[in-house]
Amino acid sequence: MKIKCIVSYDGTLFAGYQVQPKLRTVQGELEGALKKLHKGHEVKVAASGRTDAGVHAVGQVIHFETPLNIPADRWGVALNSLLPADITVIDVAAASDDFHARFDAVGKEYRYTVLRSAQRNPFVRNYAYYYPYSLDLALIEAAKTHLMGTHDFTSFCSAKSEVEDRVRELRSIEVHEDGDKLIFSFIGNGFLYNMVRILTGTLLSVGAGEIAPDEIPEILKKKNRIYAGKTAPAHGLYLWEVFYN
Amino acid sequence: MKIKCIVSYDGTLFAGYQVQPKLRTVQGELEGALKKLHKGHEVKVAASGRTDAGVHAVGQVIHFETPLNIPADRWGVALNSLLPADITVIDVAAASDDFHARFDAVGKEYRYTVLRSAQRNPFVRNYAYYYPYSLDLALIEAAKTHLMGTHDFTSFCSAKSEVEDRVRELRSIEVHEDGDKLIFSFIGNGFLYNMVRILTGTLLSVGAGEIAPDEIPEILKKKNRIYAGKTAPAHGLYLWEVFYN
Repeated sequence: MKIKCIVSYDGTLFAGYQVQPKLRTVQGELEGALKKLHKGHEVKVAASGRTDAGVHAVGQVIHFETPLNIPADRWGVALNSLLPADITVIDVAAASDDFHARFDAVGKEYRYTVLRSAQRNPFVRNYAYYYPYSLDLALIEAAKTHLMGTHDFTSFCSAKSEVEDRVRELRSIEVHEDGDKLIFSFIGNGFLYNMVRILTGTLLSVGAGEIAPDEIPEILKKKNRIYAGKTAPAHGLYLWEVFYN
Repeated sequence: MKIKCIVSYDGTLFAGYQVQPKLRTVQGELEGALKKLHKGHEVKVAASGRTDAGVHAVGQVIHFETPLNIPADRWGVALNSLLPADITVIDVAAASDDFHARFDAVGKEYRYTVLRSAQRNPFVRNYAYYYPYSLDLALIEAAKTHLMGTHDFTSFCSAKSEVEDRVRELRSIEVHEDGDKLIFSFIGNGFLYNMVRILTGTLLSVGAGEIAPDEIPEILKKKNRIYAGKTAPAHGLYLWEVFYN
């Protein structure tokens, strides 16, 4: 049978989601736990997408095939007992045989957390990007409208990406303050490599007055990574939710 | 001149507050930063008290003597630029020549955070004790009244402690729920070794129905560590504030 899980992880101590030889990865830990449950047999895990080193997930979605006849509500307990404390399986459900965590995803939400306190905070050093400089939120709101919708996001994609089709639909960008944090939420049908981090870095540059909101259409048109803002650091980024029909 | 600082640190990656050879300690990092600022001269730091490995501080207080003529508001910036990200100097003030962070402290507040969510949470694994079992808060409230006031707290002190006078005044115990967290606050004139962790472990045992509230006076009277509850783990504990006249 096919099992779908929602998985939460603190990305701090991982070399990213995807398995890499000799490195500690989320996929590696998940497949290690499944291998133990399957008495040494390898079980391959498919995720909605990768996350980079240091990037967190609140609602990553994975699936795997298993011959074991464990009820859905027992899988979470079984897996969590074998997983390290920085990964938790939050929810488990039986999935249809043709379900695929990556190919069936119709959208994703990412969130990016910026800490704005006067002093840096030791407790969130791995969970928010510390940016105490002044920001004009009205400029960020104005820039958002130019980014939402369907665009070729090549300028907002790592130059290392080998993906050819860089057209994506950015359905919503929300920015809200939560105490001394500023939280950016991005919902779209799909995201390119480093796209959320470059969008956030660009919106911060807009808020700081370094890029004008009406330069955004020009930056999109250039289709060249060098025209957008900096790539905000990995540790402020959360894969928040993956959407399916 | 004498400088007083309020210091916040994430205890996760420290072998405790106090300097120990070859281990990473909060005092070691503070004195290392001060040594750099003083061009290689050693500067001794005195704190309000030690904290154990894994224990956090929001408002630890330290003092040191310096020949440098840096304005109080510049010390924070200077020190933070030399300190690692898991220690932050929150506030700096000039202190009178006879001020002592430990001997002048007239009270302290410690907080202990318990996570009660249905699933464990990777993001707070080092910042709250995960205790999802059922608790009767009314029992905990009843037990509190027996603990507050002036008592010999030998039963609530690590058997390893060499302190002779174990009489302390526990001025208040507050327990409040904050989302899926249960936060214990303890204010007293001083605390013995492991006292807050044993108080918390005992109150959790009371809430779980393992110890009755009216057994507390008996436990205090025994003056023997074995009669109180378990020592709750270090990572839920925060030195919250130190009080001076």
